[in-house]
Amino acid sequence: MSTESFLTDFHQVAAIGATPAGGVERQAATPEDKQLRDWFTAFAAERGWPVRVDSIGNLFALVEWRPGADYVLVGSHLDSQPLGGRFDGAYGVIAALHAADRLAARVARGEPPKYNLAVVDWFNEEGSRFAPSIMGSSVFAGLMDEQEMLRVTDSDGITVAEALEAIGYRGTDERPKPAAYAEIHIEQGPVLEREGIALGAVDRSWYTQKLDVEVLGEQSHTGATAMADRRDALVAASKVVVLVHDVTADFEPESIVSSVGYLTLEPNSPIVVPRRVHLVADIRANAPEIVQQARALLLERIAAVAREHDLTIDVRDFDVRPVQHFPEQGLEIAEKVAADLGAGIRRINTMAGHDSVAMNRIVPALMLFIPSVDGVSHCEREFTSDDQMAIGVDALTEATWELLQGELEAQR
Amino acid sequence: MSTESFLTDFHQVAAIGATPAGGVERQAATPEDKQLRDWFTAFAAERGWPVRVDSIGNLFALVEWRPGADYVLVGSHLDSQPLGGRFDGAYGVIAALHAADRLAARVARGEPPKYNLAVVDWFNEEGSRFAPSIMGSSVFAGLMDEQEMLRVTDSDGITVAEALEAIGYRGTDERPKPAAYAEIHIEQGPVLEREGIALGAVDRSWYTQKLDVEVLGEQSHTGATAMADRRDALVAASKVVVLVHDVTADFEPESIVSSVGYLTLEPNSPIVVPRRVHLVADIRANAPEIVQQARALLLERIAAVAREHDLTIDVRDFDVRPVQHFPEQGLEIAEKVAADLGAGIRRINTMAGHDSVAMNRIVPALMLFIPSVDGVSHCEREFTSDDQMAIGVDALTEATWELLQGELEAQR
Repeated sequence: MSTESFLTDFHQVAAIGATPAGGVERQAATPEDKQLRDWFTAFAAERGWPVRVDSIGNLFALVEWRPGADYVLVGSHLDSQPLGGRFDGAYGVIAALHAADRLAARVARGEPPKYNLAVVDWFNEEGSRFAPSIMGSSVFAGLMDEQEMLRVTDSDGITVAEALEAIGYRGTDERPKPAAYAEIHIEQGPVLEREGIALGAVDRSWYTQKLDVEVLGEQSHTGATAMADRRDALVAASKVVVLVHDVTADFEPESIVSSVGYLTLEPNSPIVVPRRVHLVADIRANAPEIVQQARALLLERIAAVAREHDLTIDVRDFDVRPVQHFPEQGLEIAEKVAADLGAGIRRINTMAGHDSVAMNRIVPALMLFIPSVDGVSHCEREFTSDDQMAIGVDALTEATWELLQGELEAQR
Repeated sequence: MSTESFLTDFHQVAAIGATPAGGVERQAATPEDKQLRDWFTAFAAERGWPVRVDSIGNLFALVEWRPGADYVLVGSHLDSQPLGGRFDGAYGVIAALHAADRLAARVARGEPPKYNLAVVDWFNEEGSRFAPSIMGSSVFAGLMDEQEMLRVTDSDGITVAEALEAIGYRGTDERPKPAAYAEIHIEQGPVLEREGIALGAVDRSWYTQKLDVEVLGEQSHTGATAMADRRDALVAASKVVVLVHDVTADFEPESIVSSVGYLTLEPNSPIVVPRRVHLVADIRANAPEIVQQARALLLERIAAVAREHDLTIDVRDFDVRPVQHFPEQGLEIAEKVAADLGAGIRRINTMAGHDSVAMNRIVPALMLFIPSVDGVSHCEREFTSDDQMAIGVDALTEATWELLQGELEAQR
């Protein structure tokens, strides 16, 4: 398949769930997510590839040359953030489908490779409708409990199980047995663009953790209660938000990110001083020590805020994700492929979580990045050019070819 | 009726919508609000008093001695904040019903007064489910548009009109024509308790206004976007919350209150830097100049936050409520009644809004306070003792008797 046919498909898919400002909104297991899955299924059906859906909604298109052999899995996710960008996730799945199509044509003219191929759309990578993120691949890899995840609810009380049934993608099919995994994704950061390099070979993920923070003050009347008599949960929580942001200034630039994306207050009435605020802080750094130092500084500073405002602030660690190293063999494959294509490549960390990080826990994984204009993501102005995307599809195709030959194996 | 029968009724009503921590939750036009209204209606029916419901859900029990004469209105509101106290509002309505019962017995033994009497439960004083607050009395007084208010929705999209119909309290009855208004309420502040005085005669309301603040940043990935590339709407909004709180320190203690009770963010996903925050600040002071100075300081400081974070912060004034003076004649009536009862009384400002402030725009109004333990309100530990409540019922009864004789009239 040509670059043109890839670009045609990519831009057609980007019209599904499109927003006026150039982004997309297709959160997990919504009607828009179903439309993308139907498109994926039709792509496979046109080529005679069997499709499987597992019990957490992961979707696989199988390209089989050796009955009974294991599979090289290649893919990413089709779901998006609310008002998200059109590249995050979808690019990697569409690139994987086109890589598979090119490789199927190549095999038809020669010897079958060692492994079969499966293109995958992982369920709910984004975690915006159903927390936590990276759900489908983590269940696949045995890192999260499937029954527990099926019971997770969205803000309307709908469970993952109900939402998957509603769109017809709660399957019962056997999962393809993986031998290795490959994924391509936009960088979502500024490094490749700044250095003018076409490809990144991801060498490791950042250390990440979340803090679940509950601020318990006292509800009172915004008009009638004197300032000295108040224990305002929102004022204290606001200081926590600023502390979470400002702690990054204690470290080297670009070595750490930290922010609060989720916050709710009760009772949230314009004339009532809030009694309770619940917020989630997300801290990530390129070394565990940095996250741990930032966490210790925050705990100390948050305790001071609680004392100052005479209220309770409970802080709980969760979703701790250690640094994952991607195998050296995969990095070398990526570098060889880039050299053959005449494309620049560098090794790079990923600050964001990815399905590849979960898969790398059970099979050797290879992850490629292409540049993000201005380094932005999870927003409508996320952008990568057609030329940059085309190089990525070529690189993913050749890297997958190497994996199909058994060049990236656990025992090496 | 005796003090005992008042206290029995008060504590029975406090059990409706009771919360485990000793408060109540009966927001406007909920099933709990309906239960209180049904209790009010039954109280009137037992005494043969006709009940009227107007088209914004205000509920009136009429005690008529002179067909065709105007009415002295006496009452407050039965709705509460979420997890509110059992005294705020309900005390004033139950006190008014008992005052009416005592006066009906007094008139049965003597000459009818100049005016008829109507006890009123104003719809939606709290404004927590349907904004703005003080809705029923403001529509009655012609200060808010009835059709507009009927279209106001709660967070589930239910309109005031639908909610009133659902509980069977959207009426079509003619409104009683008012000659004067009386109300008793808990202070919701610390003054009476601190000074050990049984009664407050409200001489004026505070100047109040709200600021509607919208912070517009840019949505991005909490993990992958470098700190320098972010325009985080929540960090900027948190600084605004702290500024709104801290501006009070620029003025005399207890001359001003200022806070944010309402805040929402979008998209509110743990791994997305927020793009938009909407919040409402509430500023009140005992003089207009203080609110205006605080507002000017805030506008300047908020603009600096917008510049610092390279984002847009729009601030809009709304719900400006000028200082209202209660008539001198009413204060003198309150002082005479207290002296006759041997109870202490002082003149006092109200920091909170009340139905009496709206009614005072169209007829002369008299408002009494009784103490609030610790000065707290809009919370479950709101408290006033039985003895303090009993003095208030006696004072309201005698003050209403004066009003029924025409002692507080517009033309005086």
